[in-house]
Amino acid sequence: MQNPDYILLTPGPLTTTNRTKEAMLKDWGSWDRDFNNITAHIRSLLLSIIEGKEDYVVVPMQGSGTFSVEATIQSVMPKDGHILVLDNGAYCKRMATLTQKMGKKVTLLSFNEREAVNPSKVNQALLDDPSITHVGMIHCETGTGIINPLEEISTLCQKHDVGLIVDAMSSFGALPISAKNIQFDALISASGKCLESVPGAGFVFLRRAILTSMENNSTSLSLDLYDQYQYMEKTGQWRFTPPTHVIAALYEALLQFIDEGGQKKRLARYEENCKTLVNGLSVLGLKTFLEPTAISPIIVTFLAPESEHYQFKEFYEKVKQQGYILYPGKLTEVETFRVGCIGAIDKQNMQDVVSCMTSVLAQMNIL
Amino acid sequence: MQNPDYILLTPGPLTTTNRTKEAMLKDWGSWDRDFNNITAHIRSLLLSIIEGKEDYVVVPMQGSGTFSVEATIQSVMPKDGHILVLDNGAYCKRMATLTQKMGKKVTLLSFNEREAVNPSKVNQALLDDPSITHVGMIHCETGTGIINPLEEISTLCQKHDVGLIVDAMSSFGALPISAKNIQFDALISASGKCLESVPGAGFVFLRRAILTSMENNSTSLSLDLYDQYQYMEKTGQWRFTPPTHVIAALYEALLQFIDEGGQKKRLARYEENCKTLVNGLSVLGLKTFLEPTAISPIIVTFLAPESEHYQFKEFYEKVKQQGYILYPGKLTEVETFRVGCIGAIDKQNMQDVVSCMTSVLAQMNIL
Repeated sequence: MQNPDYILLTPGPLTTTNRTKEAMLKDWGSWDRDFNNITAHIRSLLLSIIEGKEDYVVVPMQGSGTFSVEATIQSVMPKDGHILVLDNGAYCKRMATLTQKMGKKVTLLSFNEREAVNPSKVNQALLDDPSITHVGMIHCETGTGIINPLEEISTLCQKHDVGLIVDAMSSFGALPISAKNIQFDALISASGKCLESVPGAGFVFLRRAILTSMENNSTSLSLDLYDQYQYMEKTGQWRFTPPTHVIAALYEALLQFIDEGGQKKRLARYEENCKTLVNGLSVLGLKTFLEPTAISPIIVTFLAPESEHYQFKEFYEKVKQQGYILYPGKLTEVETFRVGCIGAIDKQNMQDVVSCMTSVLAQMNIL
Repeated sequence: MQNPDYILLTPGPLTTTNRTKEAMLKDWGSWDRDFNNITAHIRSLLLSIIEGKEDYVVVPMQGSGTFSVEATIQSVMPKDGHILVLDNGAYCKRMATLTQKMGKKVTLLSFNEREAVNPSKVNQALLDDPSITHVGMIHCETGTGIINPLEEISTLCQKHDVGLIVDAMSSFGALPISAKNIQFDALISASGKCLESVPGAGFVFLRRAILTSMENNSTSLSLDLYDQYQYMEKTGQWRFTPPTHVIAALYEALLQFIDEGGQKKRLARYEENCKTLVNGLSVLGLKTFLEPTAISPIIVTFLAPESEHYQFKEFYEKVKQQGYILYPGKLTEVETFRVGCIGAIDKQNMQDVVSCMTSVLAQMNIL
């Protein structure tokens, strides 16, 4: 695939196509109909990806993915709500932290970060504390790459009549998410992830049935999804200046997503990327942090080689010299590095990066 | 100047050069040193524009300008603070609204929107209410285009020992702002304004002396300038995914700002744009909303022609057909339209837009 410079093996920002980037070579009036049409097309395409036109709406939001997560908690949870955050990694903890900071009640249900969230423990926690109004979960926890059981948690939330807030930042577009078999109150993702566009905007799917209950929940003017939704419905415009070029790129990326064959084809490509990477590095003796069955095709965490010659910084620099950008680990207890399988990259790129790492590790006297 | 498509006569998003847009044709690892260097260069260049390296720092923030205003109020004002917002337009009211929403105390001191804020009334308000800890003002109120007296308000705030928070969104880069003769606690602007880059990021100058007092003020994780600053100082990185392409464009726009000769030369160009526009349209009988002496070279509000044939929508569409994007008025009591003088546009563009409006108004049987 095209790349003018480095191949980013990072979970967003990631490698985008030239076509996506070239969509930014034009200035747009944020008030103008032409730009409003782009926003409307994006919203419509996003809703069709989750097969949710009837029961869901989607609201784009300026800023990074975390801004959209915070906007969701602000807007969906009432001021006296209580959210149970299912924690098996760094992004789960971040959701809990931002909830606590805004003064809403949060309880953390912790799991081993090597394992997916356990639905029966979630069930028990919901039975134990009837004050819980919402469950917050991360679909693919990018800290390790583990995938949590969205469908089962969704069923549980319906059973207990609590709202479900899903951070699907790095899974949306790659893993199957259909409103036909999964119910949630809110599901969040961002432009610079598996839709393979540039970073700078998020978007949140909201269940129509909860919309009216969202009014006046948010104590933030900027991070208010209800106001953003109402204004956009009324005017077709964003409340505050949108990142026009980022949005134009997202539209172009969505068209390519459809051209490729949508989520299934994208997942197939990422799975092939992942397999090529994991198999290639296992030949070098590199082990994954997660059990082979728990590895996701989004991002893979590798244990650092057990060698006195290994230093992440040196490894990173030498791999970068050959054109690839890796990602550091996000675990405190074990030394790891991460490799993203997402973005406008394919099997050939993965074979090349395996060759590159092979030569770098040999140079470092590790192989 | 270059423009592949429409000339935006809007106060941001505005017309940017091709060189600025082409800076977005590359993907950057947000964790990588190359990108960190761009962030560091931008911060250093911004500080030199205000001649504030010694006493100030600058913190970039994801999102639109309003996100940065909200982050500033969140982070600079203590929870029990009290801000006096000097109100002569829509953006002043927005600052008050977001403060109120986050639960901090705000008092609005209202002025006629045709007139600049009156320092002696501000002085009196500060004398009358010693509970006021901060003053919030908009340097150039884009609702009308009026410029408020920054230097006098700054002197007053020092005299009364209250903090000054300046929304310099659409003035920074064009109007002179030097830390050598103006003291403020925070001064806010954004990428897509007079630095002539694309929208998607803001930045806030903060007085070093207040930094430690900012810790734990913010109830928002995303909109916390203190955390953003500390993390950036420690790691060189942004806390959450930065809009990498937007930031790369901002850097390129800053280099062009310097090439042009900085703020003085930019202001001279905008003044010439403004003069060409106002003189040209006055020949057609179009009057400005503000008195001639109060008009700013940023954006000019014109009263709609007094003709039964005039409709903004039709006027807008016909002007657009000739390649120019205008901006609607933001006043509730009088019908107006606005024309921005900022962006990568020059006198020739303004002469052309005057010719365009002349023919459009004739077509509409208004001249």
